[in-house]
Amino acid sequence: MKLARFRFEGRARYGIVEGDLVTEVRGSPFRGKLQRSNRTHRLSEVVLLPVTAPVQVFGGVGANYPDHVAQAEETSGRKLGEMGIQPFPKSNASLTGSGSPIVLTPEAGEVHYEGELVIVIGRKARRVSKERALDYVLGFTCGNDVSEKESWEKDFSHWRSKGIPTWGPVGPWIATDLDSSNLDVTIRMNGQVEHRFNTRDLISDVPTIVSHISQYATLFPGDLIFTGTSGTTRAIKPGDVVEVEISGIGNLRNPVVMERRR
Amino acid sequence: MKLARFRFEGRARYGIVEGDLVTEVRGSPFRGKLQRSNRTHRLSEVVLLPVTAPVQVFGGVGANYPDHVAQAEETSGRKLGEMGIQPFPKSNASLTGSGSPIVLTPEAGEVHYEGELVIVIGRKARRVSKERALDYVLGFTCGNDVSEKESWEKDFSHWRSKGIPTWGPVGPWIATDLDSSNLDVTIRMNGQVEHRFNTRDLISDVPTIVSHISQYATLFPGDLIFTGTSGTTRAIKPGDVVEVEISGIGNLRNPVVMERRR
Repeated sequence: MKLARFRFEGRARYGIVEGDLVTEVRGSPFRGKLQRSNRTHRLSEVVLLPVTAPVQVFGGVGANYPDHVAQAEETSGRKLGEMGIQPFPKSNASLTGSGSPIVLTPEAGEVHYEGELVIVIGRKARRVSKERALDYVLGFTCGNDVSEKESWEKDFSHWRSKGIPTWGPVGPWIATDLDSSNLDVTIRMNGQVEHRFNTRDLISDVPTIVSHISQYATLFPGDLIFTGTSGTTRAIKPGDVVEVEISGIGNLRNPVVMERRR
Repeated sequence: MKLARFRFEGRARYGIVEGDLVTEVRGSPFRGKLQRSNRTHRLSEVVLLPVTAPVQVFGGVGANYPDHVAQAEETSGRKLGEMGIQPFPKSNASLTGSGSPIVLTPEAGEVHYEGELVIVIGRKARRVSKERALDYVLGFTCGNDVSEKESWEKDFSHWRSKGIPTWGPVGPWIATDLDSSNLDVTIRMNGQVEHRFNTRDLISDVPTIVSHISQYATLFPGDLIFTGTSGTTRAIKPGDVVEVEISGIGNLRNPVVMERRR
């Protein structure tokens, strides 16, 4: 099932996506059974929102694809090969939906896209085993962990490298009933393929990530976990269009603009 | 005015605190004028909640009192004297109200209290000057930035040193119309004074902090900024009661318990 969160007539709603249509549902994806309503909209007539309104977002779990470790080590000057799972809190303020702009700020240095598989938590998870971890996952979406590189290196935390409004596109919707161990991720800039990778190369897979975080912290319904990007990322600039497409989910597409000074 | 957020009959409400009573208000503290209702409760009959439901929490802005810099440098092995304002994202999941327990987890090592003045943002703030910064502040509250020391040193981020549920007590309520430049902060453990300090010794004061963060990121109504602790903090253990009292605000009081394994 593909479950979109969208705004229509000023209100956030969930709906089931089929083709070009979205049918509103009654009830919450996080509590009990969903019921189809008789309200159907064209996707082109609604505004896609971030797929959840989470308690917390983990904007990556550290270098989690072999071919990204080298780049990250060079950037950070730190040995990352055995860093394990290191979730980076990403501000809820960063979230935006597919179709909405990534707004660069004049204060920022080089800002990179990072296309990633994102885990959507479905049930409160505390100290769950790897074997049971997927029971706590509602589904998956595409994410772009937009990151500024200079402050990522310099700062003690990631508030301004990852926490800027619109720097966390997630969408276009949640895909449930999906095997996350063999998904093709394609990143495009202005229609051209930049990079392709497959989630089978994740150093820590989805059950390992969910289980690990839950050994120390608590995951809540709607929480989002970015699982890491692959390869070498590149800077984005106003006028670009970035897409993160994942097989079985869909295509997260965001234009890049510069913030207007007031 | 003292503005409490509390639960009564299952619902979160705001109210004005006078003596032992709290009178519910109509409207939002973040939009327009508040109106007193005719519903008054004894404070002893309500459950105090975290003072806001924020978009984001900054759990400290780095070492921000001269006498805390030395301890922090020793713990981190990093030179912090000139680190400037370094906000640490703290999970929204950590927030709890006055009177509710701080729940230690068996996985954690040494966990310390950190008593701090907390800024409550009232209006969306982007690129505001120091001179205008206080216009964007609704008021202040007391905060306890409960932190685990081992993972603070080891990890790349602060997800498990600062992000555990109940490790972010804020309250008992918001004090508005308060001069934040000369407030006495008293920290007590089990009724005994542990430490006293005054906000006049803040390295970066409230207008400087709000203005600085807003130069890079955006602050939203309800956002919370912990301003840093002073002196040498100590470990807490089950059975302790920690209090953070600030002149002109009130007393944030939380018992410490150990998580029960299910």
